[in-house]
Amino acid sequence: MTKTTLHHVDVQFGDCDPAGIVFFPNFSRWMDAASLAYFMQCGVPPWRELVKTRGIVGTPLLEINTKFIKSVTYGERITIHTHIEEWRDKVFIQMHKVMRGDELICEGREVRAFVKRDADNPDRLRAIPVPEDIKTLCS
Amino acid sequence: MTKTTLHHVDVQFGDCDPAGIVFFPNFSRWMDAASLAYFMQCGVPPWRELVKTRGIVGTPLLEINTKFIKSVTYGERITIHTHIEEWRDKVFIQMHKVMRGDELICEGREVRAFVKRDADNPDRLRAIPVPEDIKTLCS
Amino acid sequence: MTKTTLHHVDVQFGDCDPAGIVFFPNFSRWMDAASLAYFMQCGVPPWRELVKTRGIVGTPLLEINTKFIKSVTYGERITIHTHIEEWRDKVFIQMHKVMRGDELICEGREVRAFVKRDADNPDRLRAIPVPEDIKTLCS
Amino acid sequence: MTKTTLHHVDVQFGDCDPAGIVFFPNFSRWMDAASLAYFMQCGVPPWRELVKTRGIVGTPLLEINTKFIKSVTYGERITIHTHIEEWRDKVFIQMHKVMRGDELICEGREVRAFVKRDADNPDRLRAIPVPEDIKTLCS
Repeated sequence: MTKTTLHHVDVQFGDCDPAGIVFFPNFSRWMDAASLAYFMQCGVPPWRELVKTRGIVGTPLLEINTKFIKSVTYGERITIHTHIEEWRDKVFIQMHKVMRGDELICEGREVRAFVKRDADNPDRLRAIPVPEDIKTLCS
Repeated sequence: MTKTTLHHVDVQFGDCDPAGIVFFPNFSRWMDAASLAYFMQCGVPPWRELVKTRGIVGTPLLEINTKFIKSVTYGERITIHTHIEEWRDKVFIQMHKVMRGDELICEGREVRAFVKRDADNPDRLRAIPVPEDIKTLCS
Repeated sequence: MTKTTLHHVDVQFGDCDPAGIVFFPNFSRWMDAASLAYFMQCGVPPWRELVKTRGIVGTPLLEINTKFIKSVTYGERITIHTHIEEWRDKVFIQMHKVMRGDELICEGREVRAFVKRDADNPDRLRAIPVPEDIKTLCS
Repeated sequence: MTKTTLHHVDVQFGDCDPAGIVFFPNFSRWMDAASLAYFMQCGVPPWRELVKTRGIVGTPLLEINTKFIKSVTYGERITIHTHIEEWRDKVFIQMHKVMRGDELICEGREVRAFVKRDADNPDRLRAIPVPEDIKTLCS
């Protein structure tokens, strides 16, 4: 098992839709922030640095699965609990539990990969094996 | 099988992240637009009308599953192909294939329900059986 | 002079554009959050409550003027300093200074009004005189 | 006077806030899209190309002034009419009129500059004189 980190979000008026509840793509946005916050809280440098030192552009998503259990509105604070469920060769599974106090609001399972720009075609991103030192920082 | 509708999106600079590709929650945003466009192209009135005439607030998501296959950048046009895969009692499965020309960019499977505000607690949304007339409009 | 309140924002990867800096409409989004946070920190109930008790839907913008002085990137924290510069009859001027530590990042001047739904046409919003009790809470 | 270009936006449910109208930072987002569309419709290559060929990263904003006249909701189509009001040495003034049919919805005046990355510090962006060939393409 890896570390679990917390990421807080204060839900804003503009995050909500005409039904008065969070417009759901914002949960994906917040989970993405929680994903990066996870690595930074584990001591991994920001992508902005890693792209210079090691060519690593970030950890784009290959797949997400999100279950929406309760709705949330503005003025409320939610906390995202994040950990790595599994490291595979070239991908990893990151789990996010979005809580409002003790209530589970939504749950996201992300498949991500570390990527570099392709040497021959810098517009193309290419998955690399999960770096061992990053794995170690997260455990 | 139900109708299939098309929804076009011209990807903008501001939809892309520091890696130069679409920031993925935008795909969820565009699929949500495609979901509503689906019903409107099938002849269902907008939620704004349905909330007045029948109390139907919209079709919030219960679950999404999205696979990201290729990346997209600004200046490109994508087309979302949307249909209903399955009508269940209180939920339905809506499928979105995001294409750039012939290339599959990403694929989203959404579980949604029609909801009304709870009579006793208008802050609460409650799933209702899928309305038969809406099913008919979509087939 | 009115109270000044602070609102913190941790800039995220997804808030930045392909140039690697904050996509500017996010500053408007954060100033809007700071605007509402201002009233809530002064003790004004959220719009969600005020719409029920007094019909006040919120404080939509009539005009914004924003100067962008320095750029900001993800991983950085900014703080928005907000106060009311002037109360007029039916509008008020709200000022936001966005700081990164001691550096001024951008500056926004907003003209806003308190609005209710029109009695005859609830789709229409109508400005009302600035409520005296809210003015008092902010001073 | 320069060319005027048109940019259409179909307003989506998720673009609207709990008051049921467009959340205003989206107008800034759409004007930014209209700004880039302007240059592309005039025959200027996308920033993605210009950064490679001439080091030009884009045209970030120095200042915006936006007046909000009428509100808009989802299901409606708006059209942004864009032109350059004035070319100065290192900045230019771009005007956007957002129309719904014949009605003026909002009006934005942007001060922008063409920028390159600083040779000594690539994290820094530096304004350059407005390129003459781009001026010619727009007139």
